Amino acid sequence: MFPNDKIKELVNSKIRVEMKGEDLILEGRLRAADDYMNILLEDTKEVEDEKEKRALGSVLLRGNNIIYMEKIA
Amino acid sequence: MFPNDKIKELVNSKIRVEMKGEDLILEGRLRAADDYMNILLEDTKEVEDEKEKRALGSVLLRGNNIIYMEKIA
Amino acid sequence: MFPNDKIKELVNSKIRVEMKGEDLILEGRLRAADDYMNILLEDTKEVEDEKEKRALGSVLLRGNNIIYMEKIA
Amino acid sequence: MFPNDKIKELVNSKIRVEMKGEDLILEGRLRAADDYMNILLEDTKEVEDEKEKRALGSVLLRGNNIIYMEKIA
Amino acid sequence: MFPNDKIKELVNSKIRVEMKGEDLILEGRLRAADDYMNILLEDTKEVEDEKEKRALGSVLLRGNNIIYMEKIA
Amino acid sequence: MFPNDKIKELVNSKIRVEMKGEDLILEGRLRAADDYMNILLEDTKEVEDEKEKRALGSVLLRGNNIIYMEKIA
Repeated sequence: MFPNDKIKELVNSKIRVEMKGEDLILEGRLRAADDYMNILLEDTKEVEDEKEKRALGSVLLRGNNIIYMEKIA
Repeated sequence: MFPNDKIKELVNSKIRVEMKGEDLILEGRLRAADDYMNILLEDTKEVEDEKEKRALGSVLLRGNNIIYMEKIA
Repeated sequence: MFPNDKIKELVNSKIRVEMKGEDLILEGRLRAADDYMNILLEDTKEVEDEKEKRALGSVLLRGNNIIYMEKIA
Repeated sequence: MFPNDKIKELVNSKIRVEMKGEDLILEGRLRAADDYMNILLEDTKEVEDEKEKRALGSVLLRGNNIIYMEKIA
Repeated sequence: MFPNDKIKELVNSKIRVEMKGEDLILEGRLRAADDYMNILLEDTKEVEDEKEKRALGSVLLRGNNIIYMEKIA
Repeated sequence: MFPNDKIKELVNSKIRVEMKGEDLILEGRLRAADDYMNILLEDTKEVEDEKEKRALGSVLLRGNNIIYMEKIA
């Protein structure tokens, strides 16, 4: 069932995720995801105006605070 | 049961979606949706003041962060 | 059980809904609702300072982002 | 089970409710409530700086957007 | 199971709670709590810059809008 | 199942958590967590611009208000 299938396809891809709060934009490699869109990103960086602002390591994102996610090249 | 029926009718239509966060407005073709209004949009663009601000590809939107969605011509 | 009963009474009435996000106020005719307060409004308009700001058609509103709804004359 | 018991005690009392969004403060008589704190208020008024700002009639409030509620005299 | 056990330990203690919305900070005695962190506080006061800003009586707080809670002396 | 496994691995580690609301950043030792990412942090401090702003003791964080969490050295 969607969206699980779609998210599973994205595992191991690089994705961009926009989060709620201060509208944080994160990019990283998607390593795992569950049915609530809780996700584990690796080699994560925070991006602002298309530039890297800050490097983070492995981060866990809470699904309900994801605005959108998209695959990046 | 509503709203699933209504959303299913919209699959393959172009829709506009207003999201929480920085009140992002996205337009794209609705390709899939689940019971939580998690949706997959294709050929997505971010819109500001009725103009395209940024092109996105295929994006997954988290249902709980959708303010509203409407069909566009 | 409340609030479903109350919302069902409102179907086909004109209602005003305040949404989260940019605190959008929408008015329209309530056509359908489910147990999560996800609703379908028709002939919807966005209202600001008691005046119509923008006309929308048929819109789907996500229940968790509704602050309140009330019947209007 | 709490908090249902507590809320049931408040039915027919006047309450003050602070909502999310623009941090709306509403006062009215509590007429009904469900397990999610979705509530029906009657003779509702919006309050700002302890004064009535606007009169609303009967309003339905979505429980997840309630910050707190308290009984008022 | 956590966090219910932890919260139960706090019943009858004075706690500080930061809420969403206007980032309200409340202090009071925890009288009851359920599995969703919906809580009942008594002798509640709103705190700003470590000073009492406003006294509230007995308030019901919606769990999903709690940022954090901590025991105070 | 993820993300529970991942979070369990983090128990007893020092973590950084960004919360919704005023975009609070907290650092502390993770002592317990449940399936909703509700967590118990000990020796918690609030961090601003990479410096300690305020010391908190043992705090309970509501999972739905977590933006992300990451392990720190």
